[in-house]
Amino acid sequence: MERIKPRTLSGFMELLPGKQIQMERIMGVLKDTYSRYGFAPLDTPAIEDAQILLAKGGGETEKQIYRFQKGDSDLALRFDLTVPLAKYVALHYNDLAFPFRRYQISKVYRGERAQRGRFREFYQADIDIIGDGKLDILNEAEIPAIIYQVFRGFGLTRFQIRVNNRKILGGFYHMLGLSEKSGDIMRTVDKLDKIGKEKVGEILREDCGLTQEETAQILEFMAISGTNDQVLSALSGYRGRNEMFDQGLDELEAVTRNLAAFGVPQENFGVDLTIARGLDYYTGTVYETTLLDHPEIGSVCSGGRYDNLAGYYIDKALPGVGISIGLTRLFYVLDEQGLLNDKLPTAPADALVLPMTADPAPAIALAQSLREEGLRVQLYGEQKKFKQKMTYADKLGVPFVVLLGEDELAQGKCSVKNMTTGEQVTVTASEAAQLMKTTLDTREPLILEK
Amino acid sequence: MERIKPRTLSGFMELLPGKQIQMERIMGVLKDTYSRYGFAPLDTPAIEDAQILLAKGGGETEKQIYRFQKGDSDLALRFDLTVPLAKYVALHYNDLAFPFRRYQISKVYRGERAQRGRFREFYQADIDIIGDGKLDILNEAEIPAIIYQVFRGFGLTRFQIRVNNRKILGGFYHMLGLSEKSGDIMRTVDKLDKIGKEKVGEILREDCGLTQEETAQILEFMAISGTNDQVLSALSGYRGRNEMFDQGLDELEAVTRNLAAFGVPQENFGVDLTIARGLDYYTGTVYETTLLDHPEIGSVCSGGRYDNLAGYYIDKALPGVGISIGLTRLFYVLDEQGLLNDKLPTAPADALVLPMTADPAPAIALAQSLREEGLRVQLYGEQKKFKQKMTYADKLGVPFVVLLGEDELAQGKCSVKNMTTGEQVTVTASEAAQLMKTTLDTREPLILEK
Repeated sequence: MERIKPRTLSGFMELLPGKQIQMERIMGVLKDTYSRYGFAPLDTPAIEDAQILLAKGGGETEKQIYRFQKGDSDLALRFDLTVPLAKYVALHYNDLAFPFRRYQISKVYRGERAQRGRFREFYQADIDIIGDGKLDILNEAEIPAIIYQVFRGFGLTRFQIRVNNRKILGGFYHMLGLSEKSGDIMRTVDKLDKIGKEKVGEILREDCGLTQEETAQILEFMAISGTNDQVLSALSGYRGRNEMFDQGLDELEAVTRNLAAFGVPQENFGVDLTIARGLDYYTGTVYETTLLDHPEIGSVCSGGRYDNLAGYYIDKALPGVGISIGLTRLFYVLDEQGLLNDKLPTAPADALVLPMTADPAPAIALAQSLREEGLRVQLYGEQKKFKQKMTYADKLGVPFVVLLGEDELAQGKCSVKNMTTGEQVTVTASEAAQLMKTTLDTREPLILEK
Repeated sequence: MERIKPRTLSGFMELLPGKQIQMERIMGVLKDTYSRYGFAPLDTPAIEDAQILLAKGGGETEKQIYRFQKGDSDLALRFDLTVPLAKYVALHYNDLAFPFRRYQISKVYRGERAQRGRFREFYQADIDIIGDGKLDILNEAEIPAIIYQVFRGFGLTRFQIRVNNRKILGGFYHMLGLSEKSGDIMRTVDKLDKIGKEKVGEILREDCGLTQEETAQILEFMAISGTNDQVLSALSGYRGRNEMFDQGLDELEAVTRNLAAFGVPQENFGVDLTIARGLDYYTGTVYETTLLDHPEIGSVCSGGRYDNLAGYYIDKALPGVGISIGLTRLFYVLDEQGLLNDKLPTAPADALVLPMTADPAPAIALAQSLREEGLRVQLYGEQKKFKQKMTYADKLGVPFVVLLGEDELAQGKCSVKNMTTGEQVTVTASEAAQLMKTTLDTREPLILEK
């Protein structure tokens, strides 16, 4: 037979079973947390009408999108989960209760140039709250509070959710009479972390054409730091000069106050005036999230408040607030850095049951009773030598092997071998289940800090 | 602003939140059950190299596949989960432990002609066990035993897993000297349920060119029925005339015996000689599953044993056994027939917390404490009139509304309103959690029998 060499396309993540189990655990934390906050799961098609996906247009998107014909239809794969959400809300407007809260963890597609750590198919994990006409500021604190719970669910403590408000930035640039240049300025200031103050100042003067004085004022403003109270207090000094600024500061104060009410500790969130977010549809609060021991990863979770979700599709004011985790890239980076905790078992089963009797029926029944105790159990049915069976157990990485031979059967017991310690005990099925469950119930974090 | 009319492509399922929650529950049963049997979750790319997906070729597939260019690449969307599994196993052969057990619940794509109840994007929920060289017959009983657990997990009892073995059919046709016509005969006999004995006999004689005698023998064989023991005993009468037949009967006997050991009741599985499965890669045991009160739905879960999973990609004998549920179609049909149980709440939250105080902090804390008790809780933060808040709760369909006003706050309590009964009580937060959890903990089936 002529064979075709199997391969997976570059830029497409395909995990081995152990890694996939680690990924599923992370997704599990996301789903559980989002659900606990009353977000509805959403699942939209991966393929949409190309006209609809490209309603907004825009250079990079058009270049990267997977677009194709089928019959007469002009189709495309979604490149994010926001445009499909906008379409969904516009299409089902009359059937939804607003505020509409949804989460979606789905793959999106971008035909980027292949590059290490860049994916063409990747998961985004998004939550959004969409209001009809209005949306209370409380939601802008709840979103980062949920993200805090997610990261705690991963087992992390050393992370910070950074919050800013674009009205503060917009208002500030207006005070300086620099509104028209604010886009360029924000993009430049966004690089402070990466290229430093000197270089940013240089670009502001030379490329953006600001005066020495303007540049100094901007850098001074961006240097405001300290505790949240200190930052808010410093910002108060600018009050009364611009309406938009004052409104932004009111919002930022409300978000900060409510974040504390949501139980997010001071050390896990901070006002950071340098955050602007590139996307121009954010209009108020914006977020970024960084792992404090891994600043090189950049923001692992970003989002913000927008005023007009679905203007391309429906004549309704639909303000919202949302946040997105680039899950595939995050997983890739964590794995690269060895931060996925390998102490948590990555085998597809907690126990491998080895029948050692001619009739498999007692082993089948034993496996079933262990499953009813909540364990993940694989029955090994192959006719192999004992050593080969143990080699299989090793390769699979199962934490436990359960042996059922004539001796055990006669005693109404089974033998449980702990594959980590090598310890073996002969106990009843229900003792075996208890023993395994106790050992497996670790409080290990999914993700390590360093 | 010029607007584009939002729409979802025809043949693509997009559910409203309540329905999506019902779908997630069904997927949850599938994932939990598959995991409990030690199957590894697998997630392969939706896009593959078109050459790889089409290695086997074949008319319908080529016509239906979504195939497109991106740069120089000839790409296609997967049309099932078996071909990607074959590629995966061939590609990662050295990293996998065999038998390799995986489940995958993913979307597949077929550009079929649009038709009511036909989908172009649909979920398949597959499990497969792949051996390296050999695979024990025990696995052929375990697969339907797992499917039994899945359907019980849905809350169903009135279903039957029908089992046959293609070696029995092949051996039987060989006895009659009809091996060459066996493909045509099997396809015809497969229609017995739909078109009846008379019509099948007619086609066998007129289109397949069988004699009156041959036709009678086939119809007599296919009419073998009764309890599993009766069918197996009747089949024994044909023993000794064909080796393949005898081997098939040995296998069928083993599967039947082991299915009982796996705890599958007699009434939920039955030997059915009319089942052949269209796909020509099945070589032994084959399965179909029917809902006894809804025969018109046809088989909701089918599969079987195959000898050569990945011959197009690798020079290894990789026999396997698997089964597939066409989840999107199943969900669609169940919904159409009103069989999705609406007694289970379909709201995204168990409780909606309404802050009735100026400061939302106490309500935020209350919502958080209810979440820690395992409840799904939405905090309602909008500034609206009480009546509008209750209208929202109604539209959302939440089972409970929790009110926290100054009175309750002064007492250290909250008011819980059961939205189904209208009953309202004022209790502590922890009493509220208990009350709600007890009410929500129903043993309602996900799917109704009729």
